[in-house]
Amino acid sequence: MKDSVGIVKKNYFEIKEEVSLESGKKLGPITLAYETYGKLDNGNKNAILVFHALSGDAHAAGYHSKNDKNPGWWEAAIGPNKAFDTNKYFVICVNVIGGCKGSTGPSSINPKTGKPYATDFPIITIKDMVNVQKKLIDHLGIKRLLAVTGGSMGGMQVLQWAVSFPEATKLIIPIATATHQSAQNIAFHEAGRRAIIADPNWSKGNYYGKKQPSLGLAVARMIGHITYLSDYSMREKFGRRLQNKDKPDFSFDTEFQVESYLQYQGDKFVERFDANSYLYITKAIDYFDLTEGGTKKLEDIFASIKSKFLIISFSSDWLYPTAESKKIVQALQKSGHDVVFFEIASNYGHDAFLLENETQTSLIKSFLKNNYEEIKNG
Amino acid sequence: MKDSVGIVKKNYFEIKEEVSLESGKKLGPITLAYETYGKLDNGNKNAILVFHALSGDAHAAGYHSKNDKNPGWWEAAIGPNKAFDTNKYFVICVNVIGGCKGSTGPSSINPKTGKPYATDFPIITIKDMVNVQKKLIDHLGIKRLLAVTGGSMGGMQVLQWAVSFPEATKLIIPIATATHQSAQNIAFHEAGRRAIIADPNWSKGNYYGKKQPSLGLAVARMIGHITYLSDYSMREKFGRRLQNKDKPDFSFDTEFQVESYLQYQGDKFVERFDANSYLYITKAIDYFDLTEGGTKKLEDIFASIKSKFLIISFSSDWLYPTAESKKIVQALQKSGHDVVFFEIASNYGHDAFLLENETQTSLIKSFLKNNYEEIKNG
Repeated sequence: MKDSVGIVKKNYFEIKEEVSLESGKKLGPITLAYETYGKLDNGNKNAILVFHALSGDAHAAGYHSKNDKNPGWWEAAIGPNKAFDTNKYFVICVNVIGGCKGSTGPSSINPKTGKPYATDFPIITIKDMVNVQKKLIDHLGIKRLLAVTGGSMGGMQVLQWAVSFPEATKLIIPIATATHQSAQNIAFHEAGRRAIIADPNWSKGNYYGKKQPSLGLAVARMIGHITYLSDYSMREKFGRRLQNKDKPDFSFDTEFQVESYLQYQGDKFVERFDANSYLYITKAIDYFDLTEGGTKKLEDIFASIKSKFLIISFSSDWLYPTAESKKIVQALQKSGHDVVFFEIASNYGHDAFLLENETQTSLIKSFLKNNYEEIKNG
Repeated sequence: MKDSVGIVKKNYFEIKEEVSLESGKKLGPITLAYETYGKLDNGNKNAILVFHALSGDAHAAGYHSKNDKNPGWWEAAIGPNKAFDTNKYFVICVNVIGGCKGSTGPSSINPKTGKPYATDFPIITIKDMVNVQKKLIDHLGIKRLLAVTGGSMGGMQVLQWAVSFPEATKLIIPIATATHQSAQNIAFHEAGRRAIIADPNWSKGNYYGKKQPSLGLAVARMIGHITYLSDYSMREKFGRRLQNKDKPDFSFDTEFQVESYLQYQGDKFVERFDANSYLYITKAIDYFDLTEGGTKKLEDIFASIKSKFLIISFSSDWLYPTAESKKIVQALQKSGHDVVFFEIASNYGHDAFLLENETQTSLIKSFLKNNYEEIKNG
């Protein structure tokens, strides 16, 4: 556990009142599961809020016990001397509502019925996700965050936070993301949702305590996983190599390594994720569009934000390609913002934000350091 | 029906003996469904064999009846004065084995049991597909074709024909294809197959006369369809436009046009295609690798071919991208072949080979004309 924040625990924050959602519906009470790493400085000026992606959770760094072999999902970036240096900064990560890792979601008990919400859970959006996280930040006594950051859906929350609470963070670091979900990405999500809904075990969402729609969820995850890698990385990692054989069997059994890998990813995912949460969270991503259906201009949306931006994209990311980041950069320049933009050369596709640590660490480290010193001294 | 070959009929060719397959298994008797357009010239020198793609069939041009509103799948390219000018050439298209449109496939009756083959049907490959089509060409009295052509899986058959029967065609026109199926494409196919197999109606393939695995097949088709379009074309065609509403419902009902379109494509497909055929044909594509697992070099494979090549790719095709066509071009140049290569600028993605008619027609027309005149005069 060298270079790690070590053993950490999950915390819970209760929002007792009902919260109004973007859909017009209400949700409450709400539990938020969260973890923190490092310590708040005097004046609460060193807090960084990290948002997780679709299948992530509040456990961003460290280990849950001494024998735990799986660190948090962004162990590479959060810890002593890492990009988000826990010797200097206080890092917070919260499980999104709609999820299945401690925060209120479709598998939580609906206080009105005493049973899991299932599809009675209201549709939630990226805006709803950050709204409830703001309540936790207020509760922790943090008036202004040093930074908000995250990749993929985490990056969407970053952008939404900046727009919803334009004075609530000094720095904004969206990674491998976009200001809206594209038609192609909605399409991939919809194919995955159909696979879940087509699974008879899904039972219109009422499968809790019964058989899970595991086959459908596994297919959805397989589809997703293809979009997280690049054509190049799949060729390098698997190519057309056969799985544990020299010649093909000419059967419907697993022939190629890439098939075996995807099946494994699908099967592993169903052990740790709730199918209804997958439906709700993919919907939240699909609804995301800062321009509200093109009725607003990005530069106008960003105009009131009083923060500096560091925007990172990855050259082989075809899910949220560099062109999407460039749209943000252009709008920010029009609205007169300070913006550092960097496309990191990578073959890893969208997953690069979890893997390309060297350049990313250096970019983030300097950006945080320079600006934190300004705050401390200013 | 102006500019069309008009009313056409499906023909059947019977191969009475058993045929050896690449897997080592045997299949027979075999029926091949095929159509022809135009007339054979004196000397049988004007025949063009067109291979269809994954979901295609023998009905490449014209109409099956007076009131038929759906022409063949390549109506844009086959007909009087079109790319494959039926005033000049005799065009043949054959449904692949493993299919469900008249040629022997998993839904055909197994003569040994009197029931549909289902998964007792042997795994077939692209090589097997062209081997049986060669028997039809022999039967029609055609010693050497003027050309073989096709896009996507059709292009794979083109390449395999050239390699299997190096003297059996004068011209080779592979379109939007590759010498092997990539890891990413195997992955998309495998996700689709899993969706079919996960459907309880699939019943290990024995669903004939019962409920079809329609939901699973629809998901497989949805996945496939995303790969046939481009990110750009989906943005242009659908963007984030809502389906028949001004504001989102915030529900799991169809919200976006792109969802509606994909659902429609999935639902329409299950009416016309057999799920087991989808499994068998995607497997055939996945097995395709001219280099036989990298044990042979492309230039050596092409060395014995005595034909000219016209290779066409499309700039936004990410399923079989231009880079794959360029590998063929490079190998052909090394092996001393005449090759014309053209990347057509298009935003339509892989489907462009069915849509970008202007440039494609001009390229194919000249290529055929110049070479046909050489044959006639030579």
